[in-house]
Amino acid sequence: MTSFDLGLLSPLTVGHDRLVGDRAVLDALLAAERALVAAYADIGMLASDEHPIIDAVFDHMIDADALAADAVAGGNPVIPLVGQLRALVAADQRVWVHRGATSQDIIDTALMIAARAAVDRLRESLSRVTANLDDVVTRHGDTVVAARTLTQHAVPMTLGARIATWRRGIDRALVRLDALTLPAQLAGAAGTRASFLEITGSAVDARALVTAFAARVGLDDAPESWQVTRWPVTELGDALVQALDALGKIAGDVATLSRTEIGELREGTRGGSSAMPQKQNPVASTLIRSAALRAPQLGATLHLAAALAADERPAGSWHAEWPTLRELLRLALGASAHAVSLSENLRVDAGAAAHNLALTGGLLVSERLALVLVPLIGRDRFDALIREADAGADLGSLLRALPEAADLDIADLIDPAAYTGEHGDRS
Amino acid sequence: MTSFDLGLLSPLTVGHDRLVGDRAVLDALLAAERALVAAYADIGMLASDEHPIIDAVFDHMIDADALAADAVAGGNPVIPLVGQLRALVAADQRVWVHRGATSQDIIDTALMIAARAAVDRLRESLSRVTANLDDVVTRHGDTVVAARTLTQHAVPMTLGARIATWRRGIDRALVRLDALTLPAQLAGAAGTRASFLEITGSAVDARALVTAFAARVGLDDAPESWQVTRWPVTELGDALVQALDALGKIAGDVATLSRTEIGELREGTRGGSSAMPQKQNPVASTLIRSAALRAPQLGATLHLAAALAADERPAGSWHAEWPTLRELLRLALGASAHAVSLSENLRVDAGAAAHNLALTGGLLVSERLALVLVPLIGRDRFDALIREADAGADLGSLLRALPEAADLDIADLIDPAAYTGEHGDRS
Amino acid sequence: MTSFDLGLLSPLTVGHDRLVGDRAVLDALLAAERALVAAYADIGMLASDEHPIIDAVFDHMIDADALAADAVAGGNPVIPLVGQLRALVAADQRVWVHRGATSQDIIDTALMIAARAAVDRLRESLSRVTANLDDVVTRHGDTVVAARTLTQHAVPMTLGARIATWRRGIDRALVRLDALTLPAQLAGAAGTRASFLEITGSAVDARALVTAFAARVGLDDAPESWQVTRWPVTELGDALVQALDALGKIAGDVATLSRTEIGELREGTRGGSSAMPQKQNPVASTLIRSAALRAPQLGATLHLAAALAADERPAGSWHAEWPTLRELLRLALGASAHAVSLSENLRVDAGAAAHNLALTGGLLVSERLALVLVPLIGRDRFDALIREADAGADLGSLLRALPEAADLDIADLIDPAAYTGEHGDRS
Amino acid sequence: MTSFDLGLLSPLTVGHDRLVGDRAVLDALLAAERALVAAYADIGMLASDEHPIIDAVFDHMIDADALAADAVAGGNPVIPLVGQLRALVAADQRVWVHRGATSQDIIDTALMIAARAAVDRLRESLSRVTANLDDVVTRHGDTVVAARTLTQHAVPMTLGARIATWRRGIDRALVRLDALTLPAQLAGAAGTRASFLEITGSAVDARALVTAFAARVGLDDAPESWQVTRWPVTELGDALVQALDALGKIAGDVATLSRTEIGELREGTRGGSSAMPQKQNPVASTLIRSAALRAPQLGATLHLAAALAADERPAGSWHAEWPTLRELLRLALGASAHAVSLSENLRVDAGAAAHNLALTGGLLVSERLALVLVPLIGRDRFDALIREADAGADLGSLLRALPEAADLDIADLIDPAAYTGEHGDRS
Repeated sequence: MTSFDLGLLSPLTVGHDRLVGDRAVLDALLAAERALVAAYADIGMLASDEHPIIDAVFDHMIDADALAADAVAGGNPVIPLVGQLRALVAADQRVWVHRGATSQDIIDTALMIAARAAVDRLRESLSRVTANLDDVVTRHGDTVVAARTLTQHAVPMTLGARIATWRRGIDRALVRLDALTLPAQLAGAAGTRASFLEITGSAVDARALVTAFAARVGLDDAPESWQVTRWPVTELGDALVQALDALGKIAGDVATLSRTEIGELREGTRGGSSAMPQKQNPVASTLIRSAALRAPQLGATLHLAAALAADERPAGSWHAEWPTLRELLRLALGASAHAVSLSENLRVDAGAAAHNLALTGGLLVSERLALVLVPLIGRDRFDALIREADAGADLGSLLRALPEAADLDIADLIDPAAYTGEHGDRS
Repeated sequence: MTSFDLGLLSPLTVGHDRLVGDRAVLDALLAAERALVAAYADIGMLASDEHPIIDAVFDHMIDADALAADAVAGGNPVIPLVGQLRALVAADQRVWVHRGATSQDIIDTALMIAARAAVDRLRESLSRVTANLDDVVTRHGDTVVAARTLTQHAVPMTLGARIATWRRGIDRALVRLDALTLPAQLAGAAGTRASFLEITGSAVDARALVTAFAARVGLDDAPESWQVTRWPVTELGDALVQALDALGKIAGDVATLSRTEIGELREGTRGGSSAMPQKQNPVASTLIRSAALRAPQLGATLHLAAALAADERPAGSWHAEWPTLRELLRLALGASAHAVSLSENLRVDAGAAAHNLALTGGLLVSERLALVLVPLIGRDRFDALIREADAGADLGSLLRALPEAADLDIADLIDPAAYTGEHGDRS
Repeated sequence: MTSFDLGLLSPLTVGHDRLVGDRAVLDALLAAERALVAAYADIGMLASDEHPIIDAVFDHMIDADALAADAVAGGNPVIPLVGQLRALVAADQRVWVHRGATSQDIIDTALMIAARAAVDRLRESLSRVTANLDDVVTRHGDTVVAARTLTQHAVPMTLGARIATWRRGIDRALVRLDALTLPAQLAGAAGTRASFLEITGSAVDARALVTAFAARVGLDDAPESWQVTRWPVTELGDALVQALDALGKIAGDVATLSRTEIGELREGTRGGSSAMPQKQNPVASTLIRSAALRAPQLGATLHLAAALAADERPAGSWHAEWPTLRELLRLALGASAHAVSLSENLRVDAGAAAHNLALTGGLLVSERLALVLVPLIGRDRFDALIREADAGADLGSLLRALPEAADLDIADLIDPAAYTGEHGDRS
Repeated sequence: MTSFDLGLLSPLTVGHDRLVGDRAVLDALLAAERALVAAYADIGMLASDEHPIIDAVFDHMIDADALAADAVAGGNPVIPLVGQLRALVAADQRVWVHRGATSQDIIDTALMIAARAAVDRLRESLSRVTANLDDVVTRHGDTVVAARTLTQHAVPMTLGARIATWRRGIDRALVRLDALTLPAQLAGAAGTRASFLEITGSAVDARALVTAFAARVGLDDAPESWQVTRWPVTELGDALVQALDALGKIAGDVATLSRTEIGELREGTRGGSSAMPQKQNPVASTLIRSAALRAPQLGATLHLAAALAADERPAGSWHAEWPTLRELLRLALGASAHAVSLSENLRVDAGAAAHNLALTGGLLVSERLALVLVPLIGRDRFDALIREADAGADLGSLLRALPEAADLDIADLIDPAAYTGEHGDRS
């Protein structure tokens, strides 16, 4: 048993990553090989009575361990897979297996098949996150909280406005994911499709074969080879990293706002500590952040691989893509799944929010005070007044003592709830 | 004179990076501050006779060195810049300078102003690269060359098909660059726009102010704050890295194909060596590749900054963006400029291409031979035949000696030009 | 005037980065060329009366801007620099300038000269940081504070113990920096030193020349070429990143502990906000963190360049090193300088620490309570007791009501100061 | 069966990565827990007759899959593992399992246990690589080859000198690996060891416990906590990346020199292609390079985690380390194993080397010619002569026609073998 990774070091993804695990990859490799045979049937080259016979072979159980071991010599798993498959087919039909294809056609297509499923799941999870966040806004959006910049209380805002910034990140990630092109690959030894032209006898038929193949695997058509034009991979990677950025931002804020001293938010599912029973660790946020910290560097590796896609197939950078892209997909699946539960169970502590709001003795609205008072009393007197308040004097009293402020509604002026600006409402 | 970087270590970008140099950044900061004043005029809050008076202040020469030095205390250049600007304005008009804004509004907007100009220039350069590549294809597209996978000759292809893979990378980068949203930023201290609501007295007017501001700086409108929702930055970064991936792929291939032993391509502008006069170094390719190797990690930093955009302004990750984004823009400007000249002056050596094509004694078309012959003579005899040819026997003679091949056009069968597949023609 | 970078986007480094600015790089290039001439004199090949005449030429003012512009064609600044220098020397002595050297010899050596100075400055700054931290420990080391894990109060600790973890990071970075090998480079066109053997007439003399050269530039001897064996660069990069990791850890903790709600620490130098006068931003921490977030990716680029150091000089990866290494040095200089002032002016608020310590109503010592009480009352009763305390019951009263705890010193048991463990004292 | 990774996408590491697979990690977690119990016995706290009874529990088979699933709730596998282990122990001895420890103690220690074994294996492999390279040098070190800079022939060198540059990279990586500190971790909930002081009753005994623990797991002693001072992780990561840099450099050169047009080197084990039987792909080089391209970004993530090691345990960055460090170890194991076989089976084609040497018609020694002839005939005449040779004239004849060269041994002067400089001999 050579299983390298059972998830022991990946609590983020356990239970959420099956769509991109080795079993799914193997299924996708088989799906790609199967689709190629079917595509030959679709364009009428393979007889309709022969096709089912060959097709049946792809249901055979393949020993993934053995395949992995046999992949070493040639540097990829398709070479031994084709060998196994062909051995299962009658000699006179053997030619139809992997016909005209190169290993890269199958691996690229298989990774895109897995990616397609994972991206669909990811979009579903992100949509649930946005719905959950909307629920939080419905319930707690009007809660006034301190906005913090460079770690310090800055001005008031509503919790709704804060969550709106989170949601915009997710929304945009969804836009990017929706717009992805996830193409099949069927371009032959060096991307020229010469083999398919030879086999089909015409460029038109070769193109038809590619289109049928893409349709069979449920991917975007690939009118042109992307064997060494790797933007389908990097754009996918970028979109995944962007999704993880958005999730990481949320997780970071939740972790901060869960701090013992702040306590405005709390993950609803208890992350216990055996040694310290009082602790409620923000476990989901922690796991999501761990993914967000890793993702950008994985994305960078995909870009490097694209930039180094030498010749008509590079000696190294293509191979570097496989585990990197797969790990990115895995992180996105795990982080988004945890984000669903995090957003669903998020607890808001309005009391803590109110407590924090008062920490600066009203100076949280000093920006507003400056806008209103500096024209009335000048910058110097205003600054002196703030210094007094900062030193502990009661802000309301100081303001009410100002002759120039006689006409002002002081209670409103120092009310954080009256200076929250835009509330993050979605128009 | 504290100039840190005159380009001494950046031959890639010298002469091409002015649009994003510190002088341009300072101009953009001024443009942003100026636009804010103008926006107040546009929405009717600032009297039309006052506006020109204040506006004139932005033409004052600002000492960039002094500004950089004064930026240290507060951690950003806008704080001292506003101080300098206000000092230039009459006391009763001073309030209009930077009114309601936060430093981040100005810096984010300024970087996007610089980015806008740089991206426009980049698109122009990339378009010229594609036109130049089309010229090469027109002149040399039919040249048959060896396609190489994993460093080894694989099958024949046309130079046109190879260049088409390059062009598709550039084309796609252009699609991404064209689709970028480069928004202005005007959201106030913590992204809530509370100050602008206070100043203008209404949400509608505050929105109008934002729109006017964006129009004045020539950027996309920003109906919502992106102070801690940083996809405008990461999407820009991703698109720049993608462009550099595409350029890096070209540069890598040109460098390889310029190797002394290969010699199919040559940069037309001589990159001399003082010590070794025979050398013609592929200098443009070298410089472009150096950018492509650096870009992905810069892009990763932008994503990290986005994922770590804590609170309503983070203590560190926003600041990490500035020089990183600027350097990415610089690399893209430099690399694309060199790619224009590289593609314009690219030399094709058809003789070298033909020489290389013959290196494997005809086995470059072994894939085709297999497709044609295995059905006729079986896999075992075919493999034996290839081994003989690989050991030096004349391939044509071997084939002509095959009884089963009597009806075949052997000359055509072993002609690399007859097995080039798709030619990269753009439909 | 083509100055690209005046520091406008680099408030972290303004005033601290002159040792690695372009002027310093130019000086180092000149120092390297000058040292080569001197080395020929040192080994007796250049007459002692000729040497001073040639040596004088290196005092000439070189136009750095022009040099940068002229560097583009050949892809490096040494080619035009040698041209300028030779033009200044009498024809019959011209041969001694750059004699036998290649551009890489001069650039590698120059970057190491700049690195040497920067690393020395960095070590000095880090030593000052440790001294400043020791001062803080002397004054406040016994202050009991809450230790936090996964954002939550965990157990008590002393501030001294916390600062000891900071100091260990700095100490280790100093160990690494002290151990660096920063070698000169003098290996000729392809690292074989064939030119120097030809010129000097013997391997022994060529080696002597190298040694003399290294001594002249104040760098480690380089018995062997490192033109494509780049560990001197990556080890330097790793050590710089490690220093920035250590500084980033401190800055992150200071920023967190400065939060409005926590307030245990405060940067002593006010980082003001024009709009929100109550704010005291942790500016130094913010700037230091921005460097720590960028550094690892710059270090990664150096490793990539090393891994891709193809042939006897690579077409791209060497060029990618220059600005990357320089920026890393710059960040380390800036971050360490700010860390000196941060650590010197750090303010400790013992009252806030004590306030925070009490936030969990004594449960901060729950780990100790479990160790002591579970053996006496069993896990179930203990858990129930903690739940009561967590719900608001007075912990001391609960404990005193336990018959099994009659012999225990309850006051000590729930005193955070009595459960701080190791204090970070340096043995 | 939830196995995520069977190696299907990791042909580089299949068969070489068991030391760091999940099974090994689980064994290491158990070894750490077992060592803690043993350490209590070692310092005399746990009775010597009780110890074996508890110790036996660690031989129980643990269900790794279940453990991975149970790890999700708390975010790490130690929490459920301790639960399982305690359930296996008699109630009155249960306290000794995981006594005083925190999850991080066990995970950090376990990863270091796995790292220790992997690093030992890595050193062994690298030593074998150097021995194999020495063998190549013994057999082929004197072969004269073209040195290439910026892809172009520069000067001659010996193959021995080239391989010496490879070996220096490996040698230095070994120095770094040998010098690593791989410490145990035993520091309690927040690194203060308060629990161990409480349990043992004295700081001296707590220290003794730590020392005994480290000895039991075969790791370096850890007098001080490194829970948030992560240089042991980053220094390990840096050394692994450095080893992969060195291997990547070799692999890159082998891949290049195996090019169809160059053919000076060849991997001795055939990397076949089903479709193109003439191809001999440099599979080992390809796989090694894929690792070298990924490693630097993984190393960067470890540094980020170190820089972001917030508080006394961070909410995310620690978790980001686990799979990242493990993958780096895996890549190093796989790449070094392939490098052993690559270096053992490397084939040198002296004929190809000689053919390539002659490609520039003797101009490969133009640097030497310049050194010798410019003093005799001046730069202008020399340049003209080189241009003639570059245009095809016979270099020897041109030289022999020079009156000033009458006394020179022209045959020697243009012999590449006479201008190879240092040969990479190891002193």
